[in-house]
Amino acid sequence: MPDPTYPNLLIRINLTADVLLGPGKADLLQGIAETGSISAAGRRMGMSYKRAWYLVDTMNGYFPEPLVVSSKGGRTGGGASLTATGRAALDCYRRIQKKAEAAIQAEIAHLAGVGKGVSK
Amino acid sequence: MPDPTYPNLLIRINLTADVLLGPGKADLLQGIAETGSISAAGRRMGMSYKRAWYLVDTMNGYFPEPLVVSSKGGRTGGGASLTATGRAALDCYRRIQKKAEAAIQAEIAHLAGVGKGVSK
Repeated sequence: MPDPTYPNLLIRINLTADVLLGPGKADLLQGIAETGSISAAGRRMGMSYKRAWYLVDTMNGYFPEPLVVSSKGGRTGGGASLTATGRAALDCYRRIQKKAEAAIQAEIAHLAGVGKGVSK
Repeated sequence: MPDPTYPNLLIRINLTADVLLGPGKADLLQGIAETGSISAAGRRMGMSYKRAWYLVDTMNGYFPEPLVVSSKGGRTGGGASLTATGRAALDCYRRIQKKAEAAIQAEIAHLAGVGKGVSK
């Protein structure tokens, strides 16, 4: 992933007090879609399989249908993929990120200039 | 503070890789403005003075002028207040929160309905 530019925005949606959807889980869902594997998606984020599976499980528990389904074993060692619900949740998070960024771009620039004689 | 309603939105602005402005620091700044004291502001958030001071110091280091100034000792035991820069940063964060929330309200409702037959 490219180095981030600053200032930038982190958006986290608290679905409940215990279930959060933020950039980490969104990237994990995207990784699962791209790699077809929870462990591979976790690995490229420097995350253990246990951690990645836990995050997926947390999200699966919130929505009426799981976001990720996985199959164990077999000759290919199993795999994982996003359900339609998982794809919808990921797409929605990406839209939220974009819309929020667009809405506050000017304010972020303002904040970065606070105290620099640009604006007070 | 009232109990939060869900789903809700957490916004954090990464000013640099090391300096973040999120709801905790915003509430701390507001607490300092309201109580005139870093320790009292920290205390009402369940935070040690050391922690509250550290957070203030981190922010002060990013902006060209400090956000908070404090006076030690004296008969009243000293106090702290927001500078014009501190007030501007806090106001800007609150505007960011409001504008982002307004921009994505519909998407948040959509996300909460994902998988419920409302939207996919």
